[in-house]
Amino acid sequence: MAQTSTGLQLRSTVRPDGSLELSLVSVPTPEPKPEEVIVRMGATPINPSDQGLLFGGADLSTAKASGTADQPIVTASIPPAALKAAAGRVGQSMPVGNEGAGVVVQAGASPAAQALMGKTVAILGGAMYTQYRCIKAVQCLVLPPGTTPAEGASCFVNPLTALGMVATMRAEGHKALVHTAAASNLGQMLHKICLKDSVSLVNIVRRQEHVDLLKKLGAAHVCNSSAPTFMEDLTEALVATGATVAFDAIGGGTIAGQILTAMEAAANRTAKEYSRYGSTTHKQVYVYGGLDTGPTEIVRNFGMAWGIGGWLLFPFLQRIGADAAQALKARVAAELKTTFASHYTRTVSLAGALQADAIADYGRRATASKVLIDPSA
Amino acid sequence: MAQTSTGLQLRSTVRPDGSLELSLVSVPTPEPKPEEVIVRMGATPINPSDQGLLFGGADLSTAKASGTADQPIVTASIPPAALKAAAGRVGQSMPVGNEGAGVVVQAGASPAAQALMGKTVAILGGAMYTQYRCIKAVQCLVLPPGTTPAEGASCFVNPLTALGMVATMRAEGHKALVHTAAASNLGQMLHKICLKDSVSLVNIVRRQEHVDLLKKLGAAHVCNSSAPTFMEDLTEALVATGATVAFDAIGGGTIAGQILTAMEAAANRTAKEYSRYGSTTHKQVYVYGGLDTGPTEIVRNFGMAWGIGGWLLFPFLQRIGADAAQALKARVAAELKTTFASHYTRTVSLAGALQADAIADYGRRATASKVLIDPSA
Repeated sequence: MAQTSTGLQLRSTVRPDGSLELSLVSVPTPEPKPEEVIVRMGATPINPSDQGLLFGGADLSTAKASGTADQPIVTASIPPAALKAAAGRVGQSMPVGNEGAGVVVQAGASPAAQALMGKTVAILGGAMYTQYRCIKAVQCLVLPPGTTPAEGASCFVNPLTALGMVATMRAEGHKALVHTAAASNLGQMLHKICLKDSVSLVNIVRRQEHVDLLKKLGAAHVCNSSAPTFMEDLTEALVATGATVAFDAIGGGTIAGQILTAMEAAANRTAKEYSRYGSTTHKQVYVYGGLDTGPTEIVRNFGMAWGIGGWLLFPFLQRIGADAAQALKARVAAELKTTFASHYTRTVSLAGALQADAIADYGRRATASKVLIDPSA
Repeated sequence: MAQTSTGLQLRSTVRPDGSLELSLVSVPTPEPKPEEVIVRMGATPINPSDQGLLFGGADLSTAKASGTADQPIVTASIPPAALKAAAGRVGQSMPVGNEGAGVVVQAGASPAAQALMGKTVAILGGAMYTQYRCIKAVQCLVLPPGTTPAEGASCFVNPLTALGMVATMRAEGHKALVHTAAASNLGQMLHKICLKDSVSLVNIVRRQEHVDLLKKLGAAHVCNSSAPTFMEDLTEALVATGATVAFDAIGGGTIAGQILTAMEAAANRTAKEYSRYGSTTHKQVYVYGGLDTGPTEIVRNFGMAWGIGGWLLFPFLQRIGADAAQALKARVAAELKTTFASHYTRTVSLAGALQADAIADYGRRATASKVLIDPSA
C-alpha cells in the first residue's frame, strides 16, 4: 500500500531560544501489529484542550509564517511565564491532537483488527493531526453506518467531558450543576444531556447573544455575568435548582469565587439559625479549563464547607473504570447526530492549519468558534 | 447551693445599628437534669476560632469601653462586608467560647453525673465564657489528677485540630504535610505530634524569630515566607519530605497558591517526561483559618491535579465517628502536659476580657499571643 507508507504530521516544538515552531513533517506509517489498525484521518478538531500542547503558551499575535505552501512553518514568541511552564518539552518535536475520526485502511492479522477494515472509526489518544494514525483496534469506536469522519471527529473530549460532569455531580451527591462559558460546543452538549436526563443546569455566559442562543435551545436558567444583576440572578437560579457543584472553563478572575458566594447565599436563604462557620452544605467548583489564564481571585465569604479544584477527563475515566467508560462512549455513538453533534467555524487541511488566518481564529479562543482539520485534504 | 444560682456570662451582640456590643449578663444556673453536671469554669481560652463569633467582624481599633468596672460594655463598629456576613445574628445576644475547663460543683442524679462531683474536667460546646456551665456528663473529659483548669483549658480545639490534620493526611493518602503560621500554639502542638509519630512536617512562618523558635524545638523543615529564597526553600523541603497536603491558617493572599506551585515544582523534579496537564500527583491545600481575611489569589501554574478547600474540626469529628473521636480525646488527656501543653500571654477575668488593653491584645491576632479567661477570678 504505497500511498500509506508515509504521511504528513503536524508538530509543535518549543525551541531552545524560547520560541514556538509549528511545522509539518513527513513520517513513515508503521506496519500495524496483529492487534492494530491504520486509520486514514479524515477529521480532527482543535479543542481548547489541544491548544496548550499545540501553542506552548506562545503569544499568537507574534506569529510569523514561513516555509512553503505545502510545508509551512509558523513561529511565535513565548512569554517568560509560559516558557517556564514549558521547560519540560524544550527541543522535543511533539505530535498534537487528542481525538479524530477516519477510515481504517490497513489492519493487523488479528480478527478484531481485520473486522475494522473499511470502517469509519473515532479514536482518542494524541498525535491525531496526522494523515495516518496507527492505533489498537480495541481503542476504535466504530461509528454508526452513514456517519462521516467530520461528524465523528469530536466523539470523546467534549461528549465525555460533558457526561463526566453529570456523572461527577451524581457521584458526589449534588442534585444540579452550574457551567460557565456555557454557550460553547461543550456547553450546548451539556445542556442537551441535562435536558434529556432531567438534570437542572445553571448556565453562565458573558454576552447577551449567548443568553439568547441558550434560551432558544430551551435552557431554563441562563445568567449573564456581564449584567449588573448577575449575583442576584445567579443566586435565584441556585435557589431554584439547588445546584452546589460548578464546572468552570474560565479559571482566572473572580467567577469561581462568585459562584461559591452565590451558592452560600442560596444555602442561607433557607437556614433556620445563624452559624458562625457559614452553611454546612459543601459547595464545590471544578476548574476544567483556562480560558482566562490570569490569577484566580477568591473572596472567602462562603463559610468553611467549600472546595475549588482541577477537573480533568482522563483521571475521571480512570476513576470510573473501563466498563463505565465504554458505556459512556456507546451513548456518544448512539446520539452522535443529536445530543453530541459538534459545529465548526471552518475546516482546513494540515497545511491550512498553519496559515495566518486560521491561526488568528485559534487565537481568539472565542465561544462557539471551532476549527476542524481534515488531514486528507 | 446559693453561690451557684446565678453567674456572669459574656455576650456578643451585633446591634441593628451595625455595631458590636460585648457585655456581661447575669444568667441563672439551670438545675442539672439527671445526666447533667454544673462546671464552675476555671479557664477558657480565646482561640482564633472564637474570634469570629466574639467580634462579629468588628474593627477593634474602633473599640470603646463603657459601663462599670464590674459590668463593662465594649462597642465597636462593623465594616459593611462583615456586617453582611453577620446578618443572621443581628439583635441576638450570643454566648461565646468553644472550650474550657473547671470543677464539677453540682451533679444530676445519674451515676455518671454523680461520679464527676469534684472532678476537674475539660469541656467543649460553646458558651464557655461563663461562670457556671451546665453540660452532659458524657461530654466531660476527666483530667488526670493534679491537672489544673488552666492546664486543661485548651484540650479540644487546638489538640484535636492538630491531630485531625495528621489523620486527614493519612486518610487521603499523603505521606507528609505542610503547615502555615506554624509557630502558633497549634503549630507547636502539630510539630510535637509529628515528632512523636515520625511524620514529616514542613513549617511555614513569616518571621525569623519563629524560624528560630521552631528550630529550637527540633523542627527539621522551617521556611520563612518573608525570605527572598522562600519558593526555593519550600520546594527543597517538599522534595525532601514528599508533602502533598497543606493546612493553611492564613487563607488570604498568595500563600495557598504558592504552596501548590512549590508542590508542583517538587513533583516535576522527578518527572520522567513532559505532561501537558502538569504532574498527576494530587496537591491539596486545606484552609482552616482566616488570619488574613483578604481575597485569596491563586496563580494556576500547577497543572490540573489540585484542590483548595475549607477544613473544619467539627465536620472532621463527625466524619470519623464517636469512637475514633474519643480515642483522640483520650490521647490529649494522656499527653496534656507534654505534646498538648498550651501557653498563654495573659490571664484575665470575664470583666478583664472587656478591658481596652486585653482587646488590643486580641486585635493583633499575633502568632503565639493567646489570652486565657478565668471566669472564677
